[in-house]
Amino acid sequence: MKFIKAHATENDFVVLIDVDDHNDVTPDQVAFLCDRRAGVGGDGLLRVVRRDGTWFMDYRNADGSVAEMCGNGIRAFAHVLVAEGLEDAREFYVDTRAGVKHIRVLSADSTDAVVAVGMGAVEVTGVSTASMGDHQFAGLGVNVGNPHLACVIPGLTAAGLADMNFVAPTFDPEFFPEGTNVEVLTELRDGQTHMRVWERGVGETRSCGTGTVAAAQAVLADAGVEHGTVTVNVPGGAVEVELNEGQATMTGPSTIVFRGELSS
Amino acid sequence: MKFIKAHATENDFVVLIDVDDHNDVTPDQVAFLCDRRAGVGGDGLLRVVRRDGTWFMDYRNADGSVAEMCGNGIRAFAHVLVAEGLEDAREFYVDTRAGVKHIRVLSADSTDAVVAVGMGAVEVTGVSTASMGDHQFAGLGVNVGNPHLACVIPGLTAAGLADMNFVAPTFDPEFFPEGTNVEVLTELRDGQTHMRVWERGVGETRSCGTGTVAAAQAVLADAGVEHGTVTVNVPGGAVEVELNEGQATMTGPSTIVFRGELSS
Repeated sequence: MKFIKAHATENDFVVLIDVDDHNDVTPDQVAFLCDRRAGVGGDGLLRVVRRDGTWFMDYRNADGSVAEMCGNGIRAFAHVLVAEGLEDAREFYVDTRAGVKHIRVLSADSTDAVVAVGMGAVEVTGVSTASMGDHQFAGLGVNVGNPHLACVIPGLTAAGLADMNFVAPTFDPEFFPEGTNVEVLTELRDGQTHMRVWERGVGETRSCGTGTVAAAQAVLADAGVEHGTVTVNVPGGAVEVELNEGQATMTGPSTIVFRGELSS
Repeated sequence: MKFIKAHATENDFVVLIDVDDHNDVTPDQVAFLCDRRAGVGGDGLLRVVRRDGTWFMDYRNADGSVAEMCGNGIRAFAHVLVAEGLEDAREFYVDTRAGVKHIRVLSADSTDAVVAVGMGAVEVTGVSTASMGDHQFAGLGVNVGNPHLACVIPGLTAAGLADMNFVAPTFDPEFFPEGTNVEVLTELRDGQTHMRVWERGVGETRSCGTGTVAAAQAVLADAGVEHGTVTVNVPGGAVEVELNEGQATMTGPSTIVFRGELSS
């Protein structure tokens, strides 16, 4: 079995190319491939499939369960399509379990790409609070297909954020009956914010695609701006989020790290 | 750059074959290759070199620093030599920064091997204590080139060990002025013990080669036996340790997971 290993702002994926959709993978196979010691290692697996004339991103979590959509994963998916010569266009659509996404590949070679993804509608759901250790935050509830509480902390610096003791947050379960992702953010400055994220059910991660969209919405609102473009710096890199008329576009890097073949 | 990814009881390694010793690696390259998200991922890197007619295991830690010896890594090293057709013998020597080690490859194919390693002298340094959370342990100080405190816990079951809240241990700094690895062990039963290990400077790991030797020494001493063979079950698998006249031989598996080539 051949595979490609890629990451997008250090959210990393095992990519299987199965254009003809003949080689579905079992949950056990996915869990093995994503195992960082006994297998290849990844946050998830992306299977490249073509169905009814459209690319389909078959995305699985590392535990083998089916996942809907990943804003970082779809950049790696699009990068692989172009780097492998499977797609000649630079603007195309990719179907996911969360609907069809519009893709623009701004640049791509065999190792690096920059990809813009139409992330769809962004909905502000209100204001709520969270606590993390001794810290109390107020934040903006933002729905990007999944729930977020994006908390802009007045006066917080990038260095202060990096030094924060980042532990499991508590939040209002009436406001977030299905739980929530929590972003901690520096104020908008020179079009930039710095973010750390606690992903629901996962813990702190190096990057969260929908979280960067929620972050951009929150720092723009905090600055009293309705539309605009924000560079969101995450531990794994940086992405640019454009918000316009309630729709988000995320632009960011993808890296193909290596190509491999399982031993047999 | 081509590489092999292998693990030995889930202690995992990026292996580079550089028989002619022409392609030394920098600390930054090692750190990149061992990075589990941006690179290939591993606990360490093994460079296969032939010097003065002898195999030399150039072993590096994941942070790029030079390391002396690794009882799990040398099994993977020997496996790769045989699987790649670099070594025809099944009994040979491998030089390391901690001296020359005697190797016997009991079985090997392209994916799996069983390898016995002469681990050298084992020295009991005395009795000391440690605490881990609310637990207080007494243990045997064992030097296997590096320091260990191997603690046999009366009545502890394998299930109880697996459920233990395994946190950073405290120990007697006068007894262990350079720190110590700490093994928590079930009593010897049917020639077996179950072990969890806290590696000095690392934290809990899935396996520790020298730790299994210290474990075997401690459970044999606890059972009132001087020599013998013990199967040591670790979270990442099992190895067999034979102790005879103060010398240890460790026998265990190695798995070649995949072969890869960095993107360029």
